[in-house]
Amino acid sequence: MEWLIIAPIAGFVSIAFAVFLYYYVKKQDSGNARMQEISTAIMEGANAYLKRQNMTLAVFVVVLAIVLGIAFRDWKMPMAYVIGSIFSALAGFFGLNVAVKANVRTSNAAAKGLNKAFPVAFYGGAVMGLSVVGLALIGISVLYYVFNDPEIILGYSLGASSLALLAKAGGGIYTKTADIGADLVGKVELGIPEDDPRNPAVIADNVGDNVGDVAGMGADLFDSYVASIVAAMIIGVTLASVDPVYVVLPLLLAAAGIFASLIGMLFVPIGVRGGNPGAALNRGTFATTIVFAVLAFVVVYALGLEIGLFYATLAGLIAGVIIGMTSDFFTSIDRGPVMKTAEAAKTGAAINILSGFSYGVISIVPPMIGISVATIAAWYLAGVHGAQFAVYGVSISAVGMLSIVGMIISADAYGPIVDNAKGIAEQAGSGKEMIEVADKLDAAGNTAKAITKGFAIAAAALTVLALFVAYAELVGLPKDPITNLYAINIIDPKVIAGLFLGAMMPPLISAMLILGVGRNAFRMVEEVRRQFKEIPGLLDGKGKPDYARCVDIAAKGALKELVLPGVLSIVAPIIVGFALGKEALGGFLAGSIITGIIFALFMANAGGTWDNAKKYIEAGGFGGEGSDAHKAAVVGDTVGDPFKDTAGPSLNTMITVMSLVASVFAPLIVTFALLA
Amino acid sequence: MEWLIIAPIAGFVSIAFAVFLYYYVKKQDSGNARMQEISTAIMEGANAYLKRQNMTLAVFVVVLAIVLGIAFRDWKMPMAYVIGSIFSALAGFFGLNVAVKANVRTSNAAAKGLNKAFPVAFYGGAVMGLSVVGLALIGISVLYYVFNDPEIILGYSLGASSLALLAKAGGGIYTKTADIGADLVGKVELGIPEDDPRNPAVIADNVGDNVGDVAGMGADLFDSYVASIVAAMIIGVTLASVDPVYVVLPLLLAAAGIFASLIGMLFVPIGVRGGNPGAALNRGTFATTIVFAVLAFVVVYALGLEIGLFYATLAGLIAGVIIGMTSDFFTSIDRGPVMKTAEAAKTGAAINILSGFSYGVISIVPPMIGISVATIAAWYLAGVHGAQFAVYGVSISAVGMLSIVGMIISADAYGPIVDNAKGIAEQAGSGKEMIEVADKLDAAGNTAKAITKGFAIAAAALTVLALFVAYAELVGLPKDPITNLYAINIIDPKVIAGLFLGAMMPPLISAMLILGVGRNAFRMVEEVRRQFKEIPGLLDGKGKPDYARCVDIAAKGALKELVLPGVLSIVAPIIVGFALGKEALGGFLAGSIITGIIFALFMANAGGTWDNAKKYIEAGGFGGEGSDAHKAAVVGDTVGDPFKDTAGPSLNTMITVMSLVASVFAPLIVTFALLA
Repeated sequence: MEWLIIAPIAGFVSIAFAVFLYYYVKKQDSGNARMQEISTAIMEGANAYLKRQNMTLAVFVVVLAIVLGIAFRDWKMPMAYVIGSIFSALAGFFGLNVAVKANVRTSNAAAKGLNKAFPVAFYGGAVMGLSVVGLALIGISVLYYVFNDPEIILGYSLGASSLALLAKAGGGIYTKTADIGADLVGKVELGIPEDDPRNPAVIADNVGDNVGDVAGMGADLFDSYVASIVAAMIIGVTLASVDPVYVVLPLLLAAAGIFASLIGMLFVPIGVRGGNPGAALNRGTFATTIVFAVLAFVVVYALGLEIGLFYATLAGLIAGVIIGMTSDFFTSIDRGPVMKTAEAAKTGAAINILSGFSYGVISIVPPMIGISVATIAAWYLAGVHGAQFAVYGVSISAVGMLSIVGMIISADAYGPIVDNAKGIAEQAGSGKEMIEVADKLDAAGNTAKAITKGFAIAAAALTVLALFVAYAELVGLPKDPITNLYAINIIDPKVIAGLFLGAMMPPLISAMLILGVGRNAFRMVEEVRRQFKEIPGLLDGKGKPDYARCVDIAAKGALKELVLPGVLSIVAPIIVGFALGKEALGGFLAGSIITGIIFALFMANAGGTWDNAKKYIEAGGFGGEGSDAHKAAVVGDTVGDPFKDTAGPSLNTMITVMSLVASVFAPLIVTFALLA
Repeated sequence: MEWLIIAPIAGFVSIAFAVFLYYYVKKQDSGNARMQEISTAIMEGANAYLKRQNMTLAVFVVVLAIVLGIAFRDWKMPMAYVIGSIFSALAGFFGLNVAVKANVRTSNAAAKGLNKAFPVAFYGGAVMGLSVVGLALIGISVLYYVFNDPEIILGYSLGASSLALLAKAGGGIYTKTADIGADLVGKVELGIPEDDPRNPAVIADNVGDNVGDVAGMGADLFDSYVASIVAAMIIGVTLASVDPVYVVLPLLLAAAGIFASLIGMLFVPIGVRGGNPGAALNRGTFATTIVFAVLAFVVVYALGLEIGLFYATLAGLIAGVIIGMTSDFFTSIDRGPVMKTAEAAKTGAAINILSGFSYGVISIVPPMIGISVATIAAWYLAGVHGAQFAVYGVSISAVGMLSIVGMIISADAYGPIVDNAKGIAEQAGSGKEMIEVADKLDAAGNTAKAITKGFAIAAAALTVLALFVAYAELVGLPKDPITNLYAINIIDPKVIAGLFLGAMMPPLISAMLILGVGRNAFRMVEEVRRQFKEIPGLLDGKGKPDYARCVDIAAKGALKELVLPGVLSIVAPIIVGFALGKEALGGFLAGSIITGIIFALFMANAGGTWDNAKKYIEAGGFGGEGSDAHKAAVVGDTVGDPFKDTAGPSLNTMITVMSLVASVFAPLIVTFALLA
């Protein structure tokens, strides 16, 4: 147990580096007055959004904390819940704050070349990555040190999930609202260019990238990271009679992951000399993976634990990397799926949509097989040491996959920073060379983003599987006498009903979110039209648009549209649990995992395919910009936007929330269910 | 056991009525020379397709029969398999043949008013309905009489499924190939009207409606009908020690369903006097449902069986009717989903597509809840008589739902007949009044079709659930000592892997079919272009287009595109079973049922919503024909075409095939699986 101290140490080291990098970024030159003006507007917008989101979160968290307090007649779980939501919000706050500082500084540094600009953007992203893993691990280890009970940490995890639900789904509705609102009035009705500063919604649009991609992705992976560790700790308790170290092993592996990420980051800036930032990022991820594998072996060996646990860790790690890479294949601009989808646009929008949809759906195959193989491999590799290690092995494989999340988020948050940097360079009328550098930086960001998306979904899948087993443990299911496993029998009609109802949830929620984007976009359009009508001289560039108002409308509407799907995610498992019992709720969770992963993957990848098919045509393929094929590809891209940026990425979080709610309420469900 | 004789009697009565109605239709006046010319072309096309399909089927059946013969070292199973495929093909042959006769006769009778035309179309459809249930029941009861072993009848069921897979998926690719091919060259490139006889692909297009909607839907429900009966018989064997009548009860209920359908049909023509053919069809379905409920009670009471079995039957029946009606809600032209999707088209194609997609996805909610409730209800209602009746109750509820299939298919096959009748009236330049009558007939057909689609998917869902339980019985799973149920434990990692892999299959297959439509449509476009170039005077109306060649290309390509998905459906469960064992295969089936139902429902209903949104605009809504909204709605409709006519409806059949393959190969899997 004395080993436990390593976890908070790793957390504080991570935060220390984040602070150091924050000041590194801050001290860079923030460019000329025009650049600073744009940057300030984005920063104001981001803060306006964060304010609104955190107000909503506060109400949400207080209500659920009171419910938890009443339900459990205890203050520990609600307190852990509140802390979880605050820590996750803090990580998002830091990440977003540095991202909106790093963008303009990257843009300015681009004038001095790739080698000067790249580190600014990457270290900006790294602040987010290191804040997430640092804060998450400090929170878990302190709570565990104080209460010595992993079940309390479930509350912490649910708190992080609550924020993630708001940040991802809310941020997703927000970003597409702003995008569609800005385009429909600005580009279509008034014919002013994209990203034109006269458009009142343009800042909301720029803010959207940060909100969805930096804060949202960070919250999502914070959530999965914590949940995977908690699940493994809960299952570790069943092995505590053998050795209590199994409860803290997940924390030690997470600490190893932080050190591996820090070492991996050292490998990043070197590669830029070759002029390829994408290769530099990949080298960092690759180095982190290898260093983590070595450290994980050291941990398992030093503690004298079963070697199978190391192999299980490795299975998760490898699956995560492979799944990220295949998701890159389906959305890469120079691969078959994107090129064929671009070609299909020649025959019109419908065929382009059908093609992107089909490839998006087919892209689920490698991850589904990967997750299956990783699960079976972890089970058997750890299971050679005895049946009780098999289940633990599955949860440890999820921890293995998520341990390198510090590096993954860093590479991912780099994306929106360079995306914004490019936008600022263009709006500020910077020179051609500067924009070329920004372009190169941006292209690498897109690849990193595609890999992270696949990784995030796969990580959520393994995490939720681990939570699923933890749920079975908490709810005290009968054990199969032959295999000595907890038993949830699919042939039980309550379980069948649970499977069907659970499987229904992710598609339903995704449809509700998409319709929400549509409704909120209409509100935005009204506001933009109003400003152009009522603010004198706005169109001539003399009036000053009210950016903050658009930002607030997008934020307010996004959080409003989120209420029903959000409440449904929390209430549905509780209703199923109390009405149909614990086995049915197990089926419900399994059903939601299955379709959650499928819809998340297909929506994210179809959206990416359409997006890049459009870019392929814009780069001169099949008729180029302005051709009929381009118009058709724009339709596909617009369909894909809420798929990949709203509905798809929200589903990870949603299934994690449902699993955590089930586990948190497990003791009550056991006592009060109608059909026992 | 002497009661068994009722089943073949009902089958022969059904066939006798079908023959009678066939001659009734045939003796009607087939109209003027122009109408006959068009009709003959459609008939030739249909026969060309059937010829091609049956040749492929023959190869397929012979190969699989040999495999079965070698695998089981026995001739009974392969023989039943061959008979099943022949009987199912025969039913399709009769149905298609009368449909292509009834269309022109309905068109001609329309001159004399609604009351004269409606019976021709309805009785034409009834020939299909009565042929399906008659042939299916004769086949099962004779095989059972001879071999006295429900497992042999699994082979018969697999034969029917093999044909259904070809007829639905192949027919689905066929019909959309022809549709897109005809439109792209005819309407878009040459500017000639839709359904113009100069277009070589126009007959293929007309044939497509019959191939997909008459033969395809008939084969699909033949398949589900047989499979539900077989599943209940297999589970009935476990109760044979109590009373052997449980094995034949499904056959007696099916017989009751045939008599109920015949009585229900008597209620149909009456209602037309009010001028509303839709209400007349619904009255028939309603009457059939009530009569069947009464007869089912009589059967259960007369045999002195447990009353809970009657309630279980009722649960399935009611669920089927309710699910059919809700699917109607989401696709009806005068309801919210369609109207909002039409309105969304004002903002462009992308928003229209997102709206239809979302409502299609939301439409899965009532059926998913309905299936869950029906399963639990059947379980508990039958289970009051003892645990062993609970499982049997679930399978009996599927039989209950499918018993009224004779009437359901009759109302459904009416749709393409009146659709063709309207087309013939328009092409032959008939009078305005005649076309108005045809229009009224056609509108009723669309509603009937929407209800049947929902019903067919729900029926497949309950059937496959019953097959799933039958599989557990056949494969001899260990029993849970507390509940005495066969146990497939979701927490077993092999089962988790099975669930993931199974859930992956329906989306994968649907994407493959959609891409197949795209490829085949390109072949069709090439051929139509070639004919216009090489046949002298074709565009001026002097040359004679080679309809049969287009029909054959569509058919050949459709069956070619079907090979990979078809083989995958048969091979995947075998591989999973032999590699991961019987529990994993159970998980695989459960996973495929879940996503199969979800994708089938959402694709069918989204397609219907887009289709009717376009029609709503064409009827004058939101700008009317030719407006920008209309153009946007056309894109949505084109995306929806392969969703609702190719991929969606093929999934029912695909999951039935996979379940049957698993059950047929069960004895071998038990013996030879790698991971036991």
